[in-house]
Parts: sequence; C-alpha cells; structure tokens
Amino acid sequence: MRYTIAEIANALEAEAVGDSDMVVTGLSEPGQAGPEDLALASNPKYAKTLASGSAQAALLWADADWEALGLKAAVLPQRPRFAMSRLTTMADPGQGFGSGIHPNAVVDPTARLGADVTVGAGAVIGPEAAIGDGSVIGPLSYVGWRASLGPNAYLREHVSIGAYVHVGANFVANPGARIGGDGFSFVTPEKSGVEAVRESLGDQGEATGQPWARIASLGAVAIGDDVEVGSNSVIDNGTIRPTTIGNRTKIDNLVHIGHNCVVGEDNLLCGCVGLAGSVTVGNFVVMAGQVGISDNLTIGNNVVLAAASKVLSSVRDGKVMLGYPATEMKTNLDMFKNTRRLPRILRDVAELKKAVFKSGTND
Amino acid sequence: MRYTIAEIANALEAEAVGDSDMVVTGLSEPGQAGPEDLALASNPKYAKTLASGSAQAALLWADADWEALGLKAAVLPQRPRFAMSRLTTMADPGQGFGSGIHPNAVVDPTARLGADVTVGAGAVIGPEAAIGDGSVIGPLSYVGWRASLGPNAYLREHVSIGAYVHVGANFVANPGARIGGDGFSFVTPEKSGVEAVRESLGDQGEATGQPWARIASLGAVAIGDDVEVGSNSVIDNGTIRPTTIGNRTKIDNLVHIGHNCVVGEDNLLCGCVGLAGSVTVGNFVVMAGQVGISDNLTIGNNVVLAAASKVLSSVRDGKVMLGYPATEMKTNLDMFKNTRRLPRILRDVAELKKAVFKSGTND
Amino acid sequence: MRYTIAEIANALEAEAVGDSDMVVTGLSEPGQAGPEDLALASNPKYAKTLASGSAQAALLWADADWEALGLKAAVLPQRPRFAMSRLTTMADPGQGFGSGIHPNAVVDPTARLGADVTVGAGAVIGPEAAIGDGSVIGPLSYVGWRASLGPNAYLREHVSIGAYVHVGANFVANPGARIGGDGFSFVTPEKSGVEAVRESLGDQGEATGQPWARIASLGAVAIGDDVEVGSNSVIDNGTIRPTTIGNRTKIDNLVHIGHNCVVGEDNLLCGCVGLAGSVTVGNFVVMAGQVGISDNLTIGNNVVLAAASKVLSSVRDGKVMLGYPATEMKTNLDMFKNTRRLPRILRDVAELKKAVFKSGTND
Repeated sequence: MRYTIAEIANALEAEAVGDSDMVVTGLSEPGQAGPEDLALASNPKYAKTLASGSAQAALLWADADWEALGLKAAVLPQRPRFAMSRLTTMADPGQGFGSGIHPNAVVDPTARLGADVTVGAGAVIGPEAAIGDGSVIGPLSYVGWRASLGPNAYLREHVSIGAYVHVGANFVANPGARIGGDGFSFVTPEKSGVEAVRESLGDQGEATGQPWARIASLGAVAIGDDVEVGSNSVIDNGTIRPTTIGNRTKIDNLVHIGHNCVVGEDNLLCGCVGLAGSVTVGNFVVMAGQVGISDNLTIGNNVVLAAASKVLSSVRDGKVMLGYPATEMKTNLDMFKNTRRLPRILRDVAELKKAVFKSGTND
Repeated sequence: MRYTIAEIANALEAEAVGDSDMVVTGLSEPGQAGPEDLALASNPKYAKTLASGSAQAALLWADADWEALGLKAAVLPQRPRFAMSRLTTMADPGQGFGSGIHPNAVVDPTARLGADVTVGAGAVIGPEAAIGDGSVIGPLSYVGWRASLGPNAYLREHVSIGAYVHVGANFVANPGARIGGDGFSFVTPEKSGVEAVRESLGDQGEATGQPWARIASLGAVAIGDDVEVGSNSVIDNGTIRPTTIGNRTKIDNLVHIGHNCVVGEDNLLCGCVGLAGSVTVGNFVVMAGQVGISDNLTIGNNVVLAAASKVLSSVRDGKVMLGYPATEMKTNLDMFKNTRRLPRILRDVAELKKAVFKSGTND
Repeated sequence: MRYTIAEIANALEAEAVGDSDMVVTGLSEPGQAGPEDLALASNPKYAKTLASGSAQAALLWADADWEALGLKAAVLPQRPRFAMSRLTTMADPGQGFGSGIHPNAVVDPTARLGADVTVGAGAVIGPEAAIGDGSVIGPLSYVGWRASLGPNAYLREHVSIGAYVHVGANFVANPGARIGGDGFSFVTPEKSGVEAVRESLGDQGEATGQPWARIASLGAVAIGDDVEVGSNSVIDNGTIRPTTIGNRTKIDNLVHIGHNCVVGEDNLLCGCVGLAGSVTVGNFVVMAGQVGISDNLTIGNNVVLAAASKVLSSVRDGKVMLGYPATEMKTNLDMFKNTRRLPRILRDVAELKKAVFKSGTND
C-alpha cells in the first residue's frame, strides 16, 4: 500500500491531523512500527506502546492527543475498530492469483464465464457452470455442473462448489470450503432405536439394530449475497428444497451446516459451530465457537449463543444462551455458582440432621 | 426424472391409487409443487400444505384419503420415510461427472482400473492403486500408492485416499474426505505430565516439559462395504494394524476418527463427532452431532450417544447416554433438573439453619 | 524394512539378546506376527499374546525374560513406548510420492525450489514461493505467492499454504491442512449486542441488529521448526502481525487456530481443538480432543486441558483443567460427584422440613 494520511482519513470518514500529505506504506502494531508505517493504536493502552516503535503516524481515536504522543500525523476515527475494516481492505495485497484463465485450468466448453474472470492453475469448472463477472476461482478449486456464482466471487484454493449450487454476489470462500456435499439423511426399514429414544427421552424400547438406507439430497444449496465461508467448512445439500444461507451471513472455519437448514441474514457463525439437519435460524444471530444445535430446532432473531453452547431446544428472539444444555446465560451462571456451593450445603445438611435427628451420617 | 405413478409405486413396494399412468417429472415439497411434480406429503400435517401448491399427485401414507386432498393420483407406502430412500435415489441427477478418463486426469501407468471407471479432471491416481469396476473418482481427487477401492466407489471432488488404504464395495466419499492421514501418536523420552494426570486424576506430579517424538503410522485404514464418509471428515492410519470401519457404517461431515479405532457395522456417526485413538465401537451404534469419545474406550452394541455427549468411560451394550461427562440420559436429565432446584434448596437450608441453630447466614 | 536385531537394538539404544543377526522384515502385533516379523510386545500383557502368533523375535521391555517367551531373539529398550518412535520411523514405507518435479505439476517460473525437492502430480507452486532443500510437496497441494517452507518439509496431498506464510524446517502437513486462510474478524458500525453481552454477562441492552464488515487479515502465519499439522486442520492469518506456532508443536486433525493466536513450543493439540482469535498459549501445553478456548485468553506453561474442556477464562502455569466451564480437574470431579448426590440432599431437606416445620411438601 502507499497512501497519504489525507487519503486514508478520507476513505475512513475520519479526521486527519498533522502533516496530512505524509505517505505511509504499511500498517503495523505500535511497538513494531517503522517510520513509514501507520501504527494502529486505537486506544490509550495501545498508544502507550508507540514509544517502543518508530511510528511517525498512527490511527488513534476521536479525541486523542496525537501531539503528546510525539507523532507527525494521525487519523482520528469515531469508531476505530470499525475503521479497521476499510483500512485493512485498502492495505490487503491479496493472494497473488494473477488474472485470466491459467493454461493449466480445466474449463468445460459449456461453462459460461463472465467478464474479467480469473481461474487459477489446476482449477476445474464443470459443464454448464456459470461464473459471474469479476470472479476469481482459486488454484485447484472446483465449480460443479450447473452451479452458479454471482459477480465478484472470490474462491481461494481447494474450494468445492457442488452441482446445482447457487450463490449470490460477492461470495468469499476460504481454502477447503465445501458447498453442496450430500446431506446426512438415513432411514431404517422399521422404527429405529433413535426414534424411540426421542419419544421416551432415553428408552430404546423394543427397537433392534437395522441397516441404514440413504435418502439422497436433491435440493442443493442456495446462498445469498455477501456471504463468506471459512476454511474447511461444509454446507450440505437439502433433500428436496435447497439448504439456504441468507445475505451477509459470515461463517468461520470448520463449521458444519446440515441439510435443509435455513440460516437467515446477517448472522455470524464462529469456528467449529455445528448445525444438525433442518435447523432454522433468524437474522442477526451470533454463534460463538463450538456451538451445536440439534436438528429441527428454530433459533429466533437477535439471539446470542455463547461459547460452546449446546442447544437442545428452540430459542426465542433476543435470548442470550450458554451451557449444555443451553439455558439463558444468567441461569447458567447461577447454576454453576450454586453447584460450587454444594460442599457447604452437604455440610449444612449433615449438621442439621445431626441436630434434628441426632444422626450425622451422610452416606 | 420421468416416471409414471405405477412405476414409482412398484419401485417403492407401495400402493398406487388414482391415475397410475400419470407421469411425474420431479419431486417437490407440497406447497411448492407444480402440476408435473410428485408432492412429498408423508403425513397429515404436510398434506395440509398441498392446497397452496399445484400438485396433482403425491406421496402420502398407507391409509391416506387421497381423493379428499383433491389429487388425481397418489402413492401410498407403508413407511413413507423409508420410501424416501428409494424415491430420492430414483430422482437423483448426480454430479454430472461424465464418464471415462478425463484427459486432464493423471493416472499412473502402474495403476489398475476396472471396467467402466470414471476419473474426473485433475484427479490423480498413484502407482499400483486399484480401482474397482464401475467406480467414479471425482475431479481433483487423489488415490494413493497401493490403495484399493472396491467396485462402485463414488468419490466426489477433492477426496484423499492415502497409501495402502483398502476400501470395500459401494464406498461413497464426500468432498474433502481424508482417508489415511498420519495418526496422532507422540511420546516423550520420560514419563509425561499427561501420563501422571491420568494416573492421579489431576496431578502432574514431578513431570517436566519434554519434546514429543512421533510414532509413525504404518497400519493404514481398512473400510468395509457400503460405507459413506462425509465432507472434510478424516480417518487416520493405524499404528501397526489398520484403523477399521465396519460394513454399512455411515459417517457425516467433519468427523474425526483417530488411529487404531475399530468401528463396527451399521453405525451412524453424525456431524463433528470425534473419536480419539484406539476407541472400539460395536454395531448399530448411533452418535449424535459433536459427540466425543476419549482414547482407548469401548462402546458396546446398540448404544445411542445423544447430542454433544462427551464420553469419558466405556459404555455397555444398549445404553442411551447424554452429557459431559456422559451418563445415562435419564440420570443426566435428573441431574440437570436437580441443579435447577438448587436456589430453593439453598433457601430451605438457610431457613432450617435459622430455625434449628437460630442462624440465617448463608455465606 | 529389512534389519537385523542388532541393527534395531543399536538404533533404539536398547539391548539385543539372543540371535542378534536374525533378520526381520516387518513389525506386527504379537498375535498376528509371522516368523519374519518383529512382534511389538512392550509389556507382560501384550507378551501373553505372543503364543497365538508365530514371532521368533520381539520388542519387549528392559528386564523381560525373553527365553521363557520362546523367542530366538529380542530387543529390550528402557522405555518401549519411546522406542516405538525410532522403530516405526525406520519401518515407514512413506506414501510413494516418488521424486523430482512431476510433469503434471505447475511450478511458477519465479518460484525458488531448493535441492532434491519433490513436487507431486497436480501440485501448484505459486509465484515467488520458496521451498527448502529436500522438501516434498504432495500431489494436488498448493504453495502460495511468496510463501516459504524450510528444509525437509513434507506436505501430503491437498494441502494449502497461503500467500506470505512462513514455515520453518521439517514441517509435516497432513491431507487437507489449510495454513493461511482469512481470519474471522468482523465489526459492526455501532456497538454490537455481543459487545454488550460481554460487558453485562448476558444482556444485549439496546443493541440492534447490524451488518458485519470484514477486517482483512494482513498478517499471514509464522510456523517454527519441527511442527506437524493434522488432516483438515486450519490456521488462520493474523490481522497485522502473523498468527504464530512455536517450534516442535504438534497439531492433530480438524483443529482450528484463529487469527492472531500465539501458540508456544512443544505443545500437543489433539483432534477437534478450537482456539478462538488472539489466544496466547505457553510451552509444554497439552490440549485433549475437542477442547475449546475463548478469544483473547492466556494459557500458561505446562497446562493440561483434559477432554472437551471449554476454557472461558485464562489459565495459570501448571494447572490441570476439565469441564465446561473448565475448572481445575479435582474441582470439576467434585462438582460432578456432588451433583449426583442431589437426590439424597433433596430427600434429606424434605425430611428436615417435615421434622422442623411440620411441612413435607417439596414443590
């Protein structure tokens, strides 16, 4: 990157102070910053470490005393964390995939590629696939039969897009993301032990072992606009209708989204989250790392599922959940505190029994 | 697809009613069905939504009143959910991988391919690999040195089969499945803190930090017939003998099966399940999503491990388990209910202390 | 393999007894051993099964009575488990990737390859990448723009190394490992519900749904020497500085390491472990399977995190943790035991209430 302080401030809709013609060529943490870097010191704690680096310019906060920090110039955004989005995008050198169709790519003659599409070495585009304008298909990635990607898709290396998958605009897929694997749907000839357990909450009854027969997944996957999927995450095909992911939903690494799920808009699904089949999720939902949701449940709008929550029943709008089984966070924290009080309760009950029944035995 | 109602009923061993010569060209949920679709309305609840679509034919249930639903024809199976297996297979258009050896595939001259084998673009078949009749090796997949696949294997794109892996008939591997990675087996020169913790249940004793030395995995993987593996799942090589997966076992996405595991027949392992090294699993076992099993444990036959169970000790035949640590489901549900009663217990004990000891303090 | 007993004993720094010129051609479990195998019977329990095989030579333990076991020769190491490291390495036939640059590999002309580098079929080496002497890049693997690998790297098939990633000597990456995916860092224009929940421990306050803007990851990944990464594991790019993995740390399958993590030396991260963003981990730490660590926490040196622990606050040096939320293992085991005592406590409290207040009702 190579920008003046004024250009950066302008792009971030932030205030430029000091020598706004000064040029910076990189971003850096304050303590490691060289004289041409823009140091990222978005709060007073980070600003203290500016002294151990050589920064002459920094990204600070709205009312920062930049001169007292010994700087020649600074950018003062209203919400520095949000400014980082635009700033890091300006500085991003990308993955160096080049442009055009690499001679070692394999593009089926019946595939339709838009304008300015890049296809990396070893990538394979299947028959009747459609790739939108400006898209980048990374090296060794695969786009299947009759799949379609909207404009400006950006697929890193080793991504899979299965047959009939439809994706909107500005899609981002990280290495090894798998869209359109077969849904995991199996059925036994007679009622299975699992069906009995669900009805009885724990009893398999008379069910005996039976082989599992596959229900094929005909429904593919439909993904909205501005969706991002992390490395090695998987989204399975729906059975009859597509598994769907709403606009602007962001999915981290190693996430599993089962067949028939309907995930809403503006969600954030963090690393290692797992959604069993046929889960419905509203909008503006945040799932922290390792959250799991059982099949056929509904998660409302504006729900927060905290770290590693295991959701075993549906969750209403606006709830903040934690634990296994997930309960409201305040309930879960209380349960934990009360469980830690058990040794004292046991002692108290023993003393009471001794006093009341003249018996101190506790076992 | 293009079938008459009679052909479908015949294939499903179900009753055809109404105009059994009527042709259907697709499957659909009842509310979205067009006039040429077979609507899937396998119970009265779904059947209610037929009115909002245009279906003239439907898959219903054994004693359904199809005429009252305004249909011209219907298929009435005894167990509609089971009928879905055959029906969706009939309707599956597949992934469009074509047939024959793609000119951009790389097949080692010493590999042995059976009759009617398909190898997709960019796939690599290593030396002395053996591929059974009728198998499909998807684009960009890899079959390693001396690996063998039985007849009718179906590998999607980006699948890895390592050296010396042996797989039976009718294998299905979804995108990014990894069979035959190196087992995770490391050892320290002297007794490690972990070994001390296992013996003491929590105390590392005098153990000090030591570097880890790898034990190489020489045992590869042996997989039976009719096994399916989900997207980005991994099955590691055994140390001396192979890690084994029994006939008809189905494995979902992002599942981890460690080295030396012996997984039995007719199991169902759902998404994100993790089996540490040297776990032995019986037959007809179901593991729900995110289940974890510690190393060297034994899981009996006909066991059900419910959602996110973390199994820290061996489980006997027929048990239904839940929780962390996993206990019998009924025990776990009781523990949860009792923990929720703790605020009342605390209150009761405080009142009792006040009454008995004339002291109400609770902290 | 083909070694004399003397050669093996010498390599393992162990004692050779009996006919030390005897040649063995493979390793085997005692019960399956043929007459040319070295049976692995490292303790008296395994040694009992020697009788059911045909072994004439075995790996035993330091003071084993090899003659009483009917053997002609034996190797007697001080710590048999540790001896397995060297022994299995000697016996490892590898993956049969051959040598040299495969004609179907795609190596950018600006990439710099050291001496004796192997590049498999379908592998892609990007512009200005640097590969150290003696390295093996497996079939269909990818090394990105300006990435560097030290000497003796061993990448299995389907591995991704992103742009600007730097890796030290003797790196091992299993199939589908992803180094250098985009970090999962998103920000809302105004304070989000999640930020409010963190401050209030459960209350989203007035926060309303907002779209998420990506913070790009400019910092890549820096990996030390002698690191191993399992199948389908992912290590994300840091935001400004690299995500780092220290020397000799070993990472199992399906592990997620988020952006900005600093993982120390000599760690062992087992299968399905997830580290959220900006986690700092000391040296000689062991994380069992399915452990999760919330973002921005610090884990000290010599910590053991037992199976499936969900770590929600920082952990000091030397601690052994278990549970969700993770607490010291002994505390967690006590909490579990006490919770199982709750039915008796409920009964006792009901009886006390009856005796003291003349009221037996419990609900």
